[in-house]
Amino acid sequence: MPHHLSRAAAGAAMLGAVLTAPALTPALAYEPLVEKQSFTIPTFTTQGGETIRDMTLGWEAYGTLNEAKDNVILITHYFSGNSHAAGRYSADDAAPGYWDAIIGSGKAIDTDAYYVIAVDTPVNLGVHNPKVITTGPATLNPETGEPWGMDFPILTIRDFVETQKALLDQLGIDTLHAVMGASMGSLQAYEWAASYPERVERVIPVIGSGWADGDLIAWMNIWSAPIRLDPNWNGGAYYDGDPPTRGLAEALKVVTLHAQHPEWSNGVFGRAWAGEDADPADSFDNLFKIEATLDAAGAARAATSDANHFLYLAKACQLFYAGHGETLYAGLLAIDSPVLMIHTNEDLIFPGDAVRETAAIIKSDGTPVQIVELQGTRGHLDGVLSMAQAAPALDAFLDQ
Amino acid sequence: MPHHLSRAAAGAAMLGAVLTAPALTPALAYEPLVEKQSFTIPTFTTQGGETIRDMTLGWEAYGTLNEAKDNVILITHYFSGNSHAAGRYSADDAAPGYWDAIIGSGKAIDTDAYYVIAVDTPVNLGVHNPKVITTGPATLNPETGEPWGMDFPILTIRDFVETQKALLDQLGIDTLHAVMGASMGSLQAYEWAASYPERVERVIPVIGSGWADGDLIAWMNIWSAPIRLDPNWNGGAYYDGDPPTRGLAEALKVVTLHAQHPEWSNGVFGRAWAGEDADPADSFDNLFKIEATLDAAGAARAATSDANHFLYLAKACQLFYAGHGETLYAGLLAIDSPVLMIHTNEDLIFPGDAVRETAAIIKSDGTPVQIVELQGTRGHLDGVLSMAQAAPALDAFLDQ
Repeated sequence: MPHHLSRAAAGAAMLGAVLTAPALTPALAYEPLVEKQSFTIPTFTTQGGETIRDMTLGWEAYGTLNEAKDNVILITHYFSGNSHAAGRYSADDAAPGYWDAIIGSGKAIDTDAYYVIAVDTPVNLGVHNPKVITTGPATLNPETGEPWGMDFPILTIRDFVETQKALLDQLGIDTLHAVMGASMGSLQAYEWAASYPERVERVIPVIGSGWADGDLIAWMNIWSAPIRLDPNWNGGAYYDGDPPTRGLAEALKVVTLHAQHPEWSNGVFGRAWAGEDADPADSFDNLFKIEATLDAAGAARAATSDANHFLYLAKACQLFYAGHGETLYAGLLAIDSPVLMIHTNEDLIFPGDAVRETAAIIKSDGTPVQIVELQGTRGHLDGVLSMAQAAPALDAFLDQ
Repeated sequence: MPHHLSRAAAGAAMLGAVLTAPALTPALAYEPLVEKQSFTIPTFTTQGGETIRDMTLGWEAYGTLNEAKDNVILITHYFSGNSHAAGRYSADDAAPGYWDAIIGSGKAIDTDAYYVIAVDTPVNLGVHNPKVITTGPATLNPETGEPWGMDFPILTIRDFVETQKALLDQLGIDTLHAVMGASMGSLQAYEWAASYPERVERVIPVIGSGWADGDLIAWMNIWSAPIRLDPNWNGGAYYDGDPPTRGLAEALKVVTLHAQHPEWSNGVFGRAWAGEDADPADSFDNLFKIEATLDAAGAARAATSDANHFLYLAKACQLFYAGHGETLYAGLLAIDSPVLMIHTNEDLIFPGDAVRETAAIIKSDGTPVQIVELQGTRGHLDGVLSMAQAAPALDAFLDQ
């Protein structure tokens, strides 16, 4: 097929949007320069009963904490994300934080009114991103002086919530005006509201459902598989050698594609070739453009990520059901605060059915639930890229 | 989460259905015992201009060829399938061929009236299935006496069609009453009708669309990636050593899950554990049941498959657009015979939108197109498992 027949358009511009999250840069980004801070939990005990000494995590804040310390909105981040939700670290940053479209002065999450806090999770993927501060398998175990590797305790989404609660406790913050997060961040939002209903006044889960179902568990296994196949992974003991970068890049390719929608791959790339004169029919080395784009995205993301951390994040997501209690639905039924759920029906990771089933359970005992459905062609990723659509509903929900 | 809370039901029974195709075994399977035959094309020239000597392939037939040789229905097979479409090789076979529900005496494809032929494709996945006869990278190259490996020429779906045409020519069959296939088989059906419109009287593409779009191309890359990551793959040169069985098994896991639908993974497995007392929260070795099921399915399928053949099949699918001509739609517009398209909206590999777009193009110049939508919870796989639903439409279409 001649190269010019492809329906690909604006490929280069969109490619940037694959590698870095925000496509929608508002006219005015959050204004003050953002500073990454860190805090340490001297002894963290996991839900599984294991101990982690010196759990150190990064965090950011936008806006000003009021005297009553009751204007706090906690933003919990997605699988491959971190606490950089808004603003820029320096004036020449290429892009602001991922939700800058909705966080800032005069925006839906108005930093003139709210103090917005975001925290890097433990086992954060971005170990080699200088702006991420996390504790996980790549961290030196103070007991041994060696990287933890796969000896690091298995964590749950509840553990993530407990690290955030530890920070709030250190800051003297008792209640949250709202907790809000996208994807894996939504799991943390559900978990906060299920575990500490008295501390959470509003819950805003974005592109996520109240438990990891069989489908999500299965896909998380598929996501992780390439890491274990890479001989450099070596059972997780690679910190004194070559890391499993190829396997990690392949894993991140699966995530990248799964978080999109066919409207994106077909609309932007179609059957375009990666190289003008390199017909994919001639050689296994000649790729279609969508393949080369996924390869580049996977490699770029792998360069700042850690493979073991990926496995721990996937495990935490698989283990999730809101509240982690005696029954599947108890945690969702424990949620008493109003809930604003934002999702898209084009989402392949958290399909509309799963989101609606979650809403039905939360609502079943009278908890108010409002659902906003995003429109877009980017699937799951529209929960990051197209959040400006939800701004009016978000604004009203935070004010009520 | 306690094990007993899972919504899994009838897991063991359904597991069988993952590993072997037919869940619907009709009361009467195709009666006569089936014999695998083979034929050889002494010199096969690929669309890419390469030569393959002694291209030998397997085939099966059900029913009786009439004197006019005009009662032939050709069945083309799916990615991981072969020519065993109906009947049993011996009376104690565990299951009949994959479409036995619709092929046989008195069935929709009535073997009392039609002579049904099915052919193993070149580069067939099932190299180590004793009932598959194919030619591909695992075959000895007569020129060198060594396995071809990745020196085997790249093939297209058109090449598959040409091998089938060679068999029909050997049998003196000029016209096909119908050509019908599921998934990759549907691509061959479109290709037959686009390339030889005068030879094909009816076209029945099942769970497939008229070209590989960007989304399919991308997923085929994801499917293939684990094979290349396996160090045993060794650039395809593994025939004198250990084959890349782990990578192949992981690749087949992706195929298995992608060909299903969340209704299956959630409905059958949910959050059930693989081992009664092996909480997945306690160890990375403790799996959820859906993970263990996928592992078992991947390993079982890998045992009869070849990794290089997988890569060649994926490439052929990526390269496909009906007719392989100068424009994307020319081949579909060349189809003049009536078309019966059978698909399901729960299909994640060939989504409903792609099927409907294909239908719109074929219809645009007046070619009659009828669409039957299957209902089910198995996604893409319903095109194999739930075909009995389409029997009345199929029966009427073949009679018209």
